[in-house]
Amino acid sequence: MREWEKNIRKVVPYVPGEQPKETSVIKLNTNENPYPPAPCAERALRSMDLDLLRRYPDPAASTLVKAIAGFYGLEEAQVFVGVGSDDVLALAFLTCFHSGRPILFPDITYSFYDVWAGLFRIPYETQPLDEDFKIRTEDYERENGGIIFPNPNAPTGILLPLSEVEKILESNPDVIVIVDEAYIDFGGTSAVPLLEKYDNLLIAQTFSKSRSMAGMRIGFLLGNPELIRYISDCKYSFNSYTMNQTAIALGAEVIRDREYFSQCTQKIIETREWAKEEFRKLGFLFTDSMANFLFVTHPLYRAEDIFSALKEAGIYVRHFSHPKRIANYLRITVGTRDEMETLFSFLKQYMPKQ
Amino acid sequence: MREWEKNIRKVVPYVPGEQPKETSVIKLNTNENPYPPAPCAERALRSMDLDLLRRYPDPAASTLVKAIAGFYGLEEAQVFVGVGSDDVLALAFLTCFHSGRPILFPDITYSFYDVWAGLFRIPYETQPLDEDFKIRTEDYERENGGIIFPNPNAPTGILLPLSEVEKILESNPDVIVIVDEAYIDFGGTSAVPLLEKYDNLLIAQTFSKSRSMAGMRIGFLLGNPELIRYISDCKYSFNSYTMNQTAIALGAEVIRDREYFSQCTQKIIETREWAKEEFRKLGFLFTDSMANFLFVTHPLYRAEDIFSALKEAGIYVRHFSHPKRIANYLRITVGTRDEMETLFSFLKQYMPKQ
Repeated sequence: MREWEKNIRKVVPYVPGEQPKETSVIKLNTNENPYPPAPCAERALRSMDLDLLRRYPDPAASTLVKAIAGFYGLEEAQVFVGVGSDDVLALAFLTCFHSGRPILFPDITYSFYDVWAGLFRIPYETQPLDEDFKIRTEDYERENGGIIFPNPNAPTGILLPLSEVEKILESNPDVIVIVDEAYIDFGGTSAVPLLEKYDNLLIAQTFSKSRSMAGMRIGFLLGNPELIRYISDCKYSFNSYTMNQTAIALGAEVIRDREYFSQCTQKIIETREWAKEEFRKLGFLFTDSMANFLFVTHPLYRAEDIFSALKEAGIYVRHFSHPKRIANYLRITVGTRDEMETLFSFLKQYMPKQ
Repeated sequence: MREWEKNIRKVVPYVPGEQPKETSVIKLNTNENPYPPAPCAERALRSMDLDLLRRYPDPAASTLVKAIAGFYGLEEAQVFVGVGSDDVLALAFLTCFHSGRPILFPDITYSFYDVWAGLFRIPYETQPLDEDFKIRTEDYERENGGIIFPNPNAPTGILLPLSEVEKILESNPDVIVIVDEAYIDFGGTSAVPLLEKYDNLLIAQTFSKSRSMAGMRIGFLLGNPELIRYISDCKYSFNSYTMNQTAIALGAEVIRDREYFSQCTQKIIETREWAKEEFRKLGFLFTDSMANFLFVTHPLYRAEDIFSALKEAGIYVRHFSHPKRIANYLRITVGTRDEMETLFSFLKQYMPKQ
């Protein structure tokens, strides 16, 4: 090892789902929305003022912040935007989990949490989900330096009722509790109304799933204005201008179209519930996902084998080999009805005895 | 202070130059390019495949990386892209300056360096510029945990000859030396050829100045493949998908148009040299800037007063009140010839005795 290498921060990075370059595959591996963004996105893109390209964007991305605040009936000072929910969560980790005490999150959850903890040298303790893959709120009553969990949880899709989210907030008034609501719009109940009551609550959301804009990288945090200011200070200490002109313009347009949004999420919910029935008929076991993906296992087939067979057939799903408890599960994004039918007709052939 | 506030990382953020919302002002305060990006940017934007919006971008932004590598005649593995040069520099600080020993940079320089050091708790020592605002290479021969300096330096615009850049590299084989070349394309000589010889050299560049794309947020690092991989690991531990679809598409197109690029930078260089003459006629003193800005002072007028008078007249320039040594200077971006003529006709009126 050369001398300069000794000074390097070495980390084990998060590995994102595959982004195959062929467009012919059925992509059910990264929880993208199968429907295009609201039509106003196209108009915004095609009519964009070209002079904006050479000029720095508004560092506060006010147009976008205002539109998000408007959607949730919050003040602008309660909204922080960034380059996807990973960006805003990374900044939230850096800013809020600075006590030196271990933060808490579930043992089976979004696999980026321990990566951020590793990057920023934040100690953590994972809390095991119960035998049904559920979060036990009592596990979050111990001394800690902060809490984070997705709701619905990933990759299980299981929703924690709002009353239980509130229980966790009640027992932890002295630390920041982050509820990662990337998948909340597919039938869950957001913690947004709790913001009034709990100044230590931070909610993360994204345009990547329910708003069909994974390609534009827009995520946001909702919280009390002081907390948002602290995170904003850290952001301004990292990169003044994170949101480019197209992200600001398209994001602000898309969130205003409430009708398209609700039609689109409703279609995905319907396809998901129908897909649950289809999986049941094929003998799969699965959690009652309230997200835009399903988390399934089969008592007679190895998840890894199904994964590979599907991939060979041009259908990408996600398989996590760690932790062991979920190694025989697959996470399958809810695509269009057509895409799901292709999936099921493949599975019916693959599992002839069912 | 509430209990949770005690756990928060508190920082003093960088303050970016003003981005006025009125478009009628003459904006010479943030070193944007006065010319639009290469015409292919418009074509790429207008013809973009809309399906890309809903899909995650390629996390490696390979199209863009490949185009940048092509421009410089480097391997793709030597290129790292991010959301503007601030993003890639922040990640470089986080990754490369991890020794615990103080890093070194000039006392008058890009004012983000000490902010990143503060954010990541990196100790640093500033090295004073000489009486002519020049970097003294011998100041960088002491024990350190890494070195960073812009070339040309900001806000002075003074270029360090490549031989002196090499002297600094020669004396510091065991730490990473970052040469921040945000302004190199306006007449400077890039350190790119030194990459072959020094595996501890990291070069930062940006699309915001010479490529007229401040609004798209594209910056990049050039370095040896192993070093780039370490930084990339940190990036993948922070945010998998930083470059959105439009940034990747437009960036890759724009860098291919070498002719437009050289015409555009040439025009700015010509306007800059002409502007130096105009400033001289008005009694200004200034450094021999090789950037797309001028760094000027007047023996008879306070910089702050000129700044305010210009602002009132709708001409924005930049004034730094710290450090004291430059408090009587203004940093003025080189705009179009027309914009500069408006500036000078205002100054001629403002300084009647000259």
